Amino acid sequence: MTESVLDYMTRLGRAAREASRVIARASTAQKNRALLAAASALDCARAELTEANAKDLAAGRENGLEPAMLDRLALTPARIDAMIEGLRQVATLPDPIGAIRDLSYRPSGIQVGKMRVPLGVVGIIYESRPNVTIDAASLCLKSGNATILRGGSEAIHSNRAVAACIQRGLAAADLPAAVVQVVETTDRAAVGALITMPEFVDVIVPRGGKGLIERVSRDARVPVIKHLDGICHVYVDALAELAKAQKIAFNAKTYRYGICGAMETLLVHQSVAADFLPAMAAQFAEKGVELRGCERTRNLIAANPATEEDWATEYLAAILSIRIVDDLDQAIEHINHYGSHHTDSIVTEHQGHARRFMAEVDSSSVMLNTPTCFADGFEYGLGAEIGISTDKLHARGPVGLEGLTCEKYVVVGDGQLRGQNA
Amino acid sequence: MTESVLDYMTRLGRAAREASRVIARASTAQKNRALLAAASALDCARAELTEANAKDLAAGRENGLEPAMLDRLALTPARIDAMIEGLRQVATLPDPIGAIRDLSYRPSGIQVGKMRVPLGVVGIIYESRPNVTIDAASLCLKSGNATILRGGSEAIHSNRAVAACIQRGLAAADLPAAVVQVVETTDRAAVGALITMPEFVDVIVPRGGKGLIERVSRDARVPVIKHLDGICHVYVDALAELAKAQKIAFNAKTYRYGICGAMETLLVHQSVAADFLPAMAAQFAEKGVELRGCERTRNLIAANPATEEDWATEYLAAILSIRIVDDLDQAIEHINHYGSHHTDSIVTEHQGHARRFMAEVDSSSVMLNTPTCFADGFEYGLGAEIGISTDKLHARGPVGLEGLTCEKYVVVGDGQLRGQNA
Repeated sequence: MTESVLDYMTRLGRAAREASRVIARASTAQKNRALLAAASALDCARAELTEANAKDLAAGRENGLEPAMLDRLALTPARIDAMIEGLRQVATLPDPIGAIRDLSYRPSGIQVGKMRVPLGVVGIIYESRPNVTIDAASLCLKSGNATILRGGSEAIHSNRAVAACIQRGLAAADLPAAVVQVVETTDRAAVGALITMPEFVDVIVPRGGKGLIERVSRDARVPVIKHLDGICHVYVDALAELAKAQKIAFNAKTYRYGICGAMETLLVHQSVAADFLPAMAAQFAEKGVELRGCERTRNLIAANPATEEDWATEYLAAILSIRIVDDLDQAIEHINHYGSHHTDSIVTEHQGHARRFMAEVDSSSVMLNTPTCFADGFEYGLGAEIGISTDKLHARGPVGLEGLTCEKYVVVGDGQLRGQNA
Repeated sequence: MTESVLDYMTRLGRAAREASRVIARASTAQKNRALLAAASALDCARAELTEANAKDLAAGRENGLEPAMLDRLALTPARIDAMIEGLRQVATLPDPIGAIRDLSYRPSGIQVGKMRVPLGVVGIIYESRPNVTIDAASLCLKSGNATILRGGSEAIHSNRAVAACIQRGLAAADLPAAVVQVVETTDRAAVGALITMPEFVDVIVPRGGKGLIERVSRDARVPVIKHLDGICHVYVDALAELAKAQKIAFNAKTYRYGICGAMETLLVHQSVAADFLPAMAAQFAEKGVELRGCERTRNLIAANPATEEDWATEYLAAILSIRIVDDLDQAIEHINHYGSHHTDSIVTEHQGHARRFMAEVDSSSVMLNTPTCFADGFEYGLGAEIGISTDKLHARGPVGLEGLTCEKYVVVGDGQLRGQNA
């Protein structure tokens, strides 16, 4: 490549902006045709995909990638099936674009309402999983956005092979190739360029480790839909049914340790702690979960001491911190102070306590009598998710198709003039 | 003041964060009580307000402030009336906080919905108009947010006097004083601190000139709800009723030259230009509007030549640029290229043309057969507005109470567990 990385990215950006006008006005049928054709293309290209992926895996092994990283990189037949299924599922989702709501008359005689439209161009920056290429491209396409995808250099051959299938899908639906572009250079300057082109890129979605997300957020001059920690709490209230609470807390921690909705801290009201904690601790011990408790907790059960740092840690592992709190106020205060504003749950049968917890806990999902591990776009009925936002502006919580759109005002008149209709 | 500006702003920020928890859970009645009590306090404090304002005006004259700036600074009896009326009106608006929508069952048995909640702490940075103190504080208070207000140093005495009335309102409703704080220092470092405290401030709303907004947007490490240019267009389509089009275009330009919704460029389809432009130009000439036209326009009417720069200029004055376009596509392309994504209108009776214009013009308001000067929170029925956003994320177009809130997910179960309900 003789052009500079900046020139190359500018070219991609300009092409994406142009393509965004076309995909924004594409019909639902046309977008679905592209998704289904891409699914078929993936199905026909299993051999190429496996071959390209083998190159990445070989290079990864040579470069000493960790086994967990190699695992994420692998495009197994099951993962190819899942990508194909994902595309077909996105095709079945309702198209959010163009919907007009609340169009109503104003005293001046004009009608004012809101129309849902695409954001424009979405930049996705992700790490080793090549299947993100399909997840992200399909959601952006269905929501009428053009996409620039920047995957990790360790997955470059796989990402190119997947992108070629998407291109076949776009061509089959007569959509421009620039609707979905994969950054072909592995130069890290490409990321710097992508996140500082507000004229060509409307929003950046970083998907990956905390380091990546912090770096992107710090340097971006484009809005970022991001998700940092998931330090999630279950609070067992004085008026909880303890058998239910135990099941909920156990599920919240052990459904999967590595998901962002996993419970990291269990808060227990002092009045039920002695009844609740021994059986709960026994169940966790049997499962091999390490417990770290406050002083009062350790008076009741065997646990390592929890430090200040524990309350602010996302373990993503078989470790749980436990604190006994004086009352509901202290529970809410603990969550708002130490939590990450992701997902927190109260277990109680008391309507007033539930109402206060739901209103006052400042998190993207607040839950009642259900485990935090339910925080997920599929479980919430979004059909698919591009991430879980812990920001407050624009999208909060699991982000599906709607999070990739915005609303503009539509105003319809028939010659009404301002200041002359009274 | 012996503490540093940074320490001072941190103290304000921490107090605002604490107060935000209280105002977030305040009842509608309590918030309205504070608004109405602040209105009464203003009414009783007319003498103090006038006296404080006189100090600012005297200092302004001494410092050689321009007459337009002095005018904006003046708290006339009519403006005090308007502030009082504004507070009373915000008290009558529906309270958006706590509303839960779309709470519905998922296959797992959990119910998922969304609850509207305050953003938290809103920082407002504004220039010489002291009445912004009331506008901003009242909207933030009603939407359950704590506010930090940083007005211009030239209005410091007026802002303090207005803030004292708000404090009386808060006290009357038993709300903490830190729900609305006015930055007491005129040190410019205070702005720098305010826009870089994401731990204490959730969003910044700059209100003022383009210089202020650009500076704030560039340096902020907190989301900004901003509005830069309003380069608004009216497009007269081939299938417009020309008499209606002339009235709409005239109103769009001349209702008020200085508002952001004023038309700056008139686009005319080539097939109607010869019929439309001469009478239109005569009406503008009579009003004293300077016309700047493209070459084809100047073949039909007297106008100065329009340069490339004209298409990208927000005049906010009695100047209008005019371009004849080949077709609807060129009109849409011109608007998306040169416009500011604020407000644009098509005049046509052709349903298909209207539908394409409304869908494809990428602006915060798209209009049909109505002048762009209708772009306004009151005209749209928001009750009041804190600004007009030309951003796409979060709030787009006129921003009222809802723009100062966000939605979080609420999830309600009765012991459902993930992965165990199939």
